Amino acid sequence: MPITLKKIDQYYQENYETIIEQFSKFLSFKSVSTDTAFEEELLSCANWLMQFIKERLNFNVELIPTVTGKPLILAKNHCGEDKKTLLYYGHYDVQPADPYDKWLSDPFVAEIRDGRIFARGAQDNKGQTFFVLKALEFLVQQNSLNCNIILLIEGEEECGSVGIEKALPELKTTLEAADLLLVCDTGTLSPLQGAITMGLRGICGLTVSLGGLRCDLHSGVHGGVAPNPAIELVRLLASLYDTNLRVKVPGFYDDIIAPTEEELAEAKKAPITDELYKQIAGAPPMGGEKGKDFHLRRSFLPTLEINGLSSGYQGPGMKTIIPQEAFAKLSCRTAFGQSSKKIIERLESTIKEMAPDYLELKITDVEAGGDGVRARLDSPHVQKAKQLLKQVYNGADPILIWEGASIPVVSNLCKTADTEPLMVGFGLEEDNIHAPNESFSLEQFRRGLIFTAKFVEDFASEQDNS
Amino acid sequence: MPITLKKIDQYYQENYETIIEQFSKFLSFKSVSTDTAFEEELLSCANWLMQFIKERLNFNVELIPTVTGKPLILAKNHCGEDKKTLLYYGHYDVQPADPYDKWLSDPFVAEIRDGRIFARGAQDNKGQTFFVLKALEFLVQQNSLNCNIILLIEGEEECGSVGIEKALPELKTTLEAADLLLVCDTGTLSPLQGAITMGLRGICGLTVSLGGLRCDLHSGVHGGVAPNPAIELVRLLASLYDTNLRVKVPGFYDDIIAPTEEELAEAKKAPITDELYKQIAGAPPMGGEKGKDFHLRRSFLPTLEINGLSSGYQGPGMKTIIPQEAFAKLSCRTAFGQSSKKIIERLESTIKEMAPDYLELKITDVEAGGDGVRARLDSPHVQKAKQLLKQVYNGADPILIWEGASIPVVSNLCKTADTEPLMVGFGLEEDNIHAPNESFSLEQFRRGLIFTAKFVEDFASEQDNS
Repeated sequence: MPITLKKIDQYYQENYETIIEQFSKFLSFKSVSTDTAFEEELLSCANWLMQFIKERLNFNVELIPTVTGKPLILAKNHCGEDKKTLLYYGHYDVQPADPYDKWLSDPFVAEIRDGRIFARGAQDNKGQTFFVLKALEFLVQQNSLNCNIILLIEGEEECGSVGIEKALPELKTTLEAADLLLVCDTGTLSPLQGAITMGLRGICGLTVSLGGLRCDLHSGVHGGVAPNPAIELVRLLASLYDTNLRVKVPGFYDDIIAPTEEELAEAKKAPITDELYKQIAGAPPMGGEKGKDFHLRRSFLPTLEINGLSSGYQGPGMKTIIPQEAFAKLSCRTAFGQSSKKIIERLESTIKEMAPDYLELKITDVEAGGDGVRARLDSPHVQKAKQLLKQVYNGADPILIWEGASIPVVSNLCKTADTEPLMVGFGLEEDNIHAPNESFSLEQFRRGLIFTAKFVEDFASEQDNS
Repeated sequence: MPITLKKIDQYYQENYETIIEQFSKFLSFKSVSTDTAFEEELLSCANWLMQFIKERLNFNVELIPTVTGKPLILAKNHCGEDKKTLLYYGHYDVQPADPYDKWLSDPFVAEIRDGRIFARGAQDNKGQTFFVLKALEFLVQQNSLNCNIILLIEGEEECGSVGIEKALPELKTTLEAADLLLVCDTGTLSPLQGAITMGLRGICGLTVSLGGLRCDLHSGVHGGVAPNPAIELVRLLASLYDTNLRVKVPGFYDDIIAPTEEELAEAKKAPITDELYKQIAGAPPMGGEKGKDFHLRRSFLPTLEINGLSSGYQGPGMKTIIPQEAFAKLSCRTAFGQSSKKIIERLESTIKEMAPDYLELKITDVEAGGDGVRARLDSPHVQKAKQLLKQVYNGADPILIWEGASIPVVSNLCKTADTEPLMVGFGLEEDNIHAPNESFSLEQFRRGLIFTAKFVEDFASEQDNS
């Protein structure tokens, strides 16, 4: 007899204290991946997680070493060759907790206030990974885990996913067994309505600098004569856009697989107005190419953003210099269909062409971090998830989201495993991920647990449509 | 019988030790004007200098309070109503000595090495003011000071000269007596050849920022939708120049009094090639408006430079944000004939016009620091200085320099005193003014002393040509 949502909920309620205790332990590790000062904590966290999976789920667990030294956890059960296989991707590393003084409680000592659990990683992605683990544990306890599960939990999503990317080719044989990739590293728009993320953009970036002056020069002695790296850089950067803010890098809009009319119609259901956007962002949605639809710009078109600028004097008052150097940090979100590698190469060569030959051009930090992904509207997994989310959210239809953001490794995971993605997350804007006082609503955690347990059970019993 | 150069030299040689001792005392005061931490040292320095002038020159000395609290020294002798009057302008404040660890000896303990005296202010402007004082002392001792002298020595040239500028109207009656303004705050191109600075540009500047976002935004979630302050700022800044780097601010080239053919021909005598320039600056002289002559760009045309840029992330690697804000520091050198105040107003209104209305524009630190000045080629004082410099430099003809730089208060001093300027300095590029290990060649100091003593003696005996 199939498990009811009520039964899973009952499990959550009865085991609440144990869940919180285990979850708090998971959150106590300072598994900050970007800072090597936390290297040992990262390893301790991985070890604890492996132990947890081994003991509670009785999975076979391996620590896959990576080139970056940040280990990847691979865990599997043995259900049967003839059973379906679900690949779950998550990460146990977190963003730095700085600035510490803005936290109301210790970021690595979980605290529950107003129905939310506060800690770094509470949502992103320890929280969302933990409800998945608890959902699987529930199924194991019930003897209801009737499919093969591959857990791939990395320790460096917050700092580039280089290790997992490099490890993927060796994992290909293992991953190819998967019939579906489940990712719970996304969110929904409101606590009243679930969401399925139907697309992600890819990402790439670089740092460009212009220099060559011997030092900062006196702007009176040299002004009008010495080439000014700051002036030349702003001219170079401005020349990357036309007057409508359309990116002028040749080929920048090639290979885009545009959304179908149906997809665009679904995206437009997002309950967001210019006024609401201004409340969220502080400014009206006037970025991106003029005249293009809000949803196209937000989810389906590539971007070229300046993420940082630096040159010369930045203190109070005036300092009359011609700065020795000027640099900018640029990054692109690439559209589904595009190659992030190709886009960054095109940007790099355009910059090289446009830079003045009398200054020194340096291009560094060139990174192509993954391509865009898109789920099919007619996927049976999406259909199933929609039905289930409706039940979990008391009858409210879920929304479909095409995210402008990226989870770099997802596209490569889909390619390596030759499978489709299903991205269902329970995060909310108010969770403050990456910011001080990150938290996760325990109600959303509960929904995540119920959704995952039921989805996996149903997945196991479905006919293979692949 | 007129004093010979030899006799002044003899005085220098015989009093060398006393001169160095007094000069070293003057250099020991940490009279850093920009940092209030040094306020007491600045006052001690002013007091010592007043005492020195009183005791050694027997001048009447007053401390003129200023709105900035950085006192201005006014000193005068009483030679006679019918005598000519020379106004000397200098400053006793210095730049900060940072970075201290780059100094080979304590910046506030004078040390002589290889014929140079090392200390902060050794040249700029304690050194050049001190040879003037010693020259006057010599004339007083010889009973040969036959003109009225007005010394105006400020304590804030290195941080904006606001106090002296505001004090000028009240000093007008005193200053109007002057027949000539002597300034020794400039340099020459080589130790083999003297120089007269025939012109200075004016100066003005501002800080512009674009912001309005609630915080740094996620470049995936908001990219393509949120307006990017860094992109908008580089577009705004780039739009201030045409493709030839001619400044597009309306009226930016109005009111310029171009150099005469003779002046330009003199300016072109400066022994500087593109190759030499590249050695000095690190890059070839490709700044300023394309197609315009090097010397015009260097000395006679206004500039609009970006002195600083800042926005978003400036650390290593990539941070995928849309920065909350972006700002730039801009300054102009204005041409002779132009009003710095008018130019900065035009720049400000152009920026206001061009800024996008969906971001918050802030313009701060608006400063108009003085207009350009130019000395007349046919001035008898210039002619006299030329002859004298030739003698001081063993027969080498002096060069005439139209500086691209500014000494902000000079134009206003000329206007207030209704007099012409004579700018003769003995500084050299290797003095490292404003930098660590500032020094002044004692040979240049000696020449400065000889030149000043003889020039003042001759000035006193000339017929009034004004």
